[in-house]
Amino acid sequence: MVESWSFLDTAESNFRPLVVIELAKGTKEETIEWFTKRIVDKKANGGAQLLIKPLVTENGVENIYLVGASHLRLLLGAEAVGLVKECSDNSMRTFTYSSRKTFKHFADDNHDFLTMAECQYIIKHELENLRAKDEKMIPGYPQAKLYPGKSIVRRLLTSGILVQIFPLHDREELKKLSHSWYGRVKIGYQPLDDIRCYFGETIALYFGFLEYFTFALIPMAVIGIPYYVFAWEDYDKYVIFATFNLLWSTVILEVWKRMCAILTYRWGTLLMKRQFEEPRPGFHGVLGINPVTGREEPMYSSIKRQLRIYLVSLPFVCLCLYFSLYVMMIYFDLEQWALDYHKENESNFSSLMLYVPSIIYAVVIEIMNLIYRYAAEFLTSWENHRLESSYQNHLILKVLVFNFLNCFASLFYIAFVMFDMKLLRQSLATLLITSQILNQFAESLLPYWLQKRYNRRMKKRMCSKKTDMDLSLAEQVNMEKEMGTYLGTFDDYLELFLQFGYVSLFSCVYPLAAVFAVLNNITEIYSDALKMCRVYKRPFAEPTANIGVWQLAFETMSVISVVTNCILIGMSPEVDALFPDSKMDLVLTVALVEHLLLAIKFIMAFVIPDKPRDIQMKLAKLEFESLEALKQQVRAFQMQLNFLLIHH
Amino acid sequence: MVESWSFLDTAESNFRPLVVIELAKGTKEETIEWFTKRIVDKKANGGAQLLIKPLVTENGVENIYLVGASHLRLLLGAEAVGLVKECSDNSMRTFTYSSRKTFKHFADDNHDFLTMAECQYIIKHELENLRAKDEKMIPGYPQAKLYPGKSIVRRLLTSGILVQIFPLHDREELKKLSHSWYGRVKIGYQPLDDIRCYFGETIALYFGFLEYFTFALIPMAVIGIPYYVFAWEDYDKYVIFATFNLLWSTVILEVWKRMCAILTYRWGTLLMKRQFEEPRPGFHGVLGINPVTGREEPMYSSIKRQLRIYLVSLPFVCLCLYFSLYVMMIYFDLEQWALDYHKENESNFSSLMLYVPSIIYAVVIEIMNLIYRYAAEFLTSWENHRLESSYQNHLILKVLVFNFLNCFASLFYIAFVMFDMKLLRQSLATLLITSQILNQFAESLLPYWLQKRYNRRMKKRMCSKKTDMDLSLAEQVNMEKEMGTYLGTFDDYLELFLQFGYVSLFSCVYPLAAVFAVLNNITEIYSDALKMCRVYKRPFAEPTANIGVWQLAFETMSVISVVTNCILIGMSPEVDALFPDSKMDLVLTVALVEHLLLAIKFIMAFVIPDKPRDIQMKLAKLEFESLEALKQQVRAFQMQLNFLLIHH
Repeated sequence: MVESWSFLDTAESNFRPLVVIELAKGTKEETIEWFTKRIVDKKANGGAQLLIKPLVTENGVENIYLVGASHLRLLLGAEAVGLVKECSDNSMRTFTYSSRKTFKHFADDNHDFLTMAECQYIIKHELENLRAKDEKMIPGYPQAKLYPGKSIVRRLLTSGILVQIFPLHDREELKKLSHSWYGRVKIGYQPLDDIRCYFGETIALYFGFLEYFTFALIPMAVIGIPYYVFAWEDYDKYVIFATFNLLWSTVILEVWKRMCAILTYRWGTLLMKRQFEEPRPGFHGVLGINPVTGREEPMYSSIKRQLRIYLVSLPFVCLCLYFSLYVMMIYFDLEQWALDYHKENESNFSSLMLYVPSIIYAVVIEIMNLIYRYAAEFLTSWENHRLESSYQNHLILKVLVFNFLNCFASLFYIAFVMFDMKLLRQSLATLLITSQILNQFAESLLPYWLQKRYNRRMKKRMCSKKTDMDLSLAEQVNMEKEMGTYLGTFDDYLELFLQFGYVSLFSCVYPLAAVFAVLNNITEIYSDALKMCRVYKRPFAEPTANIGVWQLAFETMSVISVVTNCILIGMSPEVDALFPDSKMDLVLTVALVEHLLLAIKFIMAFVIPDKPRDIQMKLAKLEFESLEALKQQVRAFQMQLNFLLIHH
Repeated sequence: MVESWSFLDTAESNFRPLVVIELAKGTKEETIEWFTKRIVDKKANGGAQLLIKPLVTENGVENIYLVGASHLRLLLGAEAVGLVKECSDNSMRTFTYSSRKTFKHFADDNHDFLTMAECQYIIKHELENLRAKDEKMIPGYPQAKLYPGKSIVRRLLTSGILVQIFPLHDREELKKLSHSWYGRVKIGYQPLDDIRCYFGETIALYFGFLEYFTFALIPMAVIGIPYYVFAWEDYDKYVIFATFNLLWSTVILEVWKRMCAILTYRWGTLLMKRQFEEPRPGFHGVLGINPVTGREEPMYSSIKRQLRIYLVSLPFVCLCLYFSLYVMMIYFDLEQWALDYHKENESNFSSLMLYVPSIIYAVVIEIMNLIYRYAAEFLTSWENHRLESSYQNHLILKVLVFNFLNCFASLFYIAFVMFDMKLLRQSLATLLITSQILNQFAESLLPYWLQKRYNRRMKKRMCSKKTDMDLSLAEQVNMEKEMGTYLGTFDDYLELFLQFGYVSLFSCVYPLAAVFAVLNNITEIYSDALKMCRVYKRPFAEPTANIGVWQLAFETMSVISVVTNCILIGMSPEVDALFPDSKMDLVLTVALVEHLLLAIKFIMAFVIPDKPRDIQMKLAKLEFESLEALKQQVRAFQMQLNFLLIHH
């Protein structure tokens, strides 16, 4: 057994670069020496036991390092991060080195057992968990303080010595992936498993959700088309559409949970144990003893944080909301002005002018969302949350509330204050389409174009006519390190969330919204795929078991849309005509229907199981096995005792 | 080490009877011999390794057996059931025999380390897990089939050979407990920890909830009294009361979760791992292979069960609901008749007669609830659910829906169809008070009186003037085996649930309901305590971490009460007068307020953490420790590998 891997751990002959570390220009020699020593040092000495090599380019050494690891080291790392892999008997189990032979496709010489993304995730995990021992500071930088247990990489990052860490692309794999993903126009599913292997679970799950959501919108779009084509405006048809819409949106959100469980079970993340959450990099405070871990680490009073949240952040958000409403009122003035202008000089130009205020407003909304986004990030990071998850939740809450109001306030105003259904339809269409065009442009096409221009210039400078495939490692690293950094799925989910709002909040007024959403999402899949493969640096894989807080956000939106749609239908003149005698009866009926729909929604959400039956069975089987194993332990211990008793 | 416990396991000198097994009269000798052999047999041979003794009375052996266990056996059993106990450093940890020295109050000769209730729970668990090996049937009873892995005790119970298994009371402890619990009139909390030690967590948690709920109702009662005393009928005062009521009911339900976490953390059940759920005793089907456990066990098609549920149970429940509504209409006829009678001959008698229909109806409701309860139990058990939890959920759902309609339909009818607030108040009061009196009587006083009479006769027959304390073991067993069986906390929670409905659904019409609820609950604590200590057999302890589905039931009730109270306030003439011009505005305002209140409710439920901060910290600490232990394992393994590498 020992022979089979002993050479692997020592031989660097098959060093495969996985992760790139870029240090700042002019980093002191002693720092570099200390850092690289800690990275290669044995685990027993508190090192990360990884392999590291400086990148040698034409201009000599550039403070760029390539990190890799031996096969054995990666397998042990896989156990440390708690990876779940498929066994030979098709069940999913947590990988351990000692049980490695039971896993599917495992062989001591099969270096593809772990995907490249998994290897990179393991290396990232090991680097981040490289902790200070008795160092008081980073050698050469007395102002960069360390204390026992502090993550060295995080301190290097916050003190600016470490510029970035990013995983390398695999040109060959990427080419294969991009060909099967967006390279050819085809009707079919995305290669989600391949995306997961290359980019990790978080990103694959986003694309899975995007695809699922697009398919789920198709029935709504199909039902919506005849409303537009035949200009159906009857009350009963709208009611049918809205009711279908409401129930459908509940069903798709519940079914997504099941789909998500199927995907993440297959990928192993459904079973993966949550890692203990370390403080986020930006967290600062006075050194103290953490009561949970017993380790020395920065502490920040929870009361101070609460004060910052309620006395600064909350008023700021309210102010922004007020400002957003103020801008909305300006938009209505503009709208009025355009209408007056059109009435005065009825021309083609003036009727085009009718759309201008909406378009301007849509652009302004996107700009305000963008600026607010930065402000929210600044504020949330100033609130100094200890955990990344708490930071993310506060950020998402801030952004969601503002974006919701910013995007939909004008529509609510038009619908429920002005009672102008024609204007509502027109505004909704303009806002939806403008924001989709802007998003596609700003998110993918612009960066792609910039990247392409930059690449062209780079290549020209290198005076070579090589294609991407033939690039040397040094050239590849140099090109990738200048690429933008993908900041996570937040913006992509937010876009879908707002789109879901446009589609469902006023669905009974504008059934065509679903059609536009479907069309947008089909191109969105392509442009997002392009963005991931060509525009940004490869992101580190991030295991995840679900879409987290977004599930709640979408469900909340679907509850709100029940209310808005019921009111809209209640306000329509056709329904009005059904209750000629008493407006009171009308309102009561609408309220009753609304409550019934909400009750049905909640009962449906309760009745539909979150996991499909076969996944439930598989999970139950695993649970049963681990309980049995425990019992076996107790029984073995008992037998041992009996044995001792007898032979005493 | 071996010396210290070797004699414990073999010596029966200090045999302490814990559990009583009563076999049917005339059970065959070979069966008894086989069963007792299996019970005392070593674990290694598939036995339970417990101690058993026949009970010898004046009339000779009566097929009653006493079961006990050695101290060591109980400790190993505690590990097998996963008991969580307090350590010397005040943290709660899962008990294991090997780490026994780290636990508080542990000593090899301290037989009080495990409470008697815990010992009895362990014995029950071990008896239930005594499984058939290669027996094809119970010896002597060829019709009582067995298959490998079938629980022997469950088969004996279902085939009627085993009459009952119950834990013995501890006369001395019981006397102490009942003295501190209800023996003296005092203002103060119940001795919840002592109750938990004697009766187990499920029952202690019920009494904890009852106490908490009573305290939580006091503010509502206090605010309600002046409404009655000063006969306040102003609109604004009612609105204040109702709003307070709604927010308060949300707060108390959320805070209860925190209280519950504090209690169950202290009792160790919050940390206790869920045991794998075996099929319930009544479950039957064709033998097959369970895909989860891989064991042979009865299988029953899920489709057949669904058919039974939807084609038989559901229509039956609907029929019962219809019948309940029919009875309600008869009640209204009676009510009308009483009113007419009162109008014709205005006398004291006739004004008393006004209350008679309500009282009769209240009695009829209780009777219908009782009959329906039996029908629901029969139906749910006929549905043949595999798991006890699924059986319980279906039973609770059936009973809750019917009881809700049966109790509250007439009130809803009076409030929202007849619009008669005076009658609503009168009906509510009569229903509430009558049902409380009936419940107290049927639940505690009647059984207590029957039990007392029976005991007196028993003693007379035994021709002795001994007090309870001096009873011999045989006399105690004979007395206890005739006592009623406590059927669980279902009825007690149901009573509280309906009471919560009476208090909150129409709180703005009858603020005094909370006062009656508080008074009832104070006596309820005493009568329930009496019932537990004197009327029923001691129940087996059942570890639990929360009140389960009842939390959801109470929360649903509080959501419904927001809706009803808003409508009631909207209908009051005072509010009506505020909107003289348009009824429409009134309804819209009410609907708006209702949605706001519901939104506030959900946000509050979301914002208030389910566990107090210190419990969260303790749980985080435990999680951190177990993760660290895992890491240490990986690290140790890694070092071992390094060592091998170096020395190769």
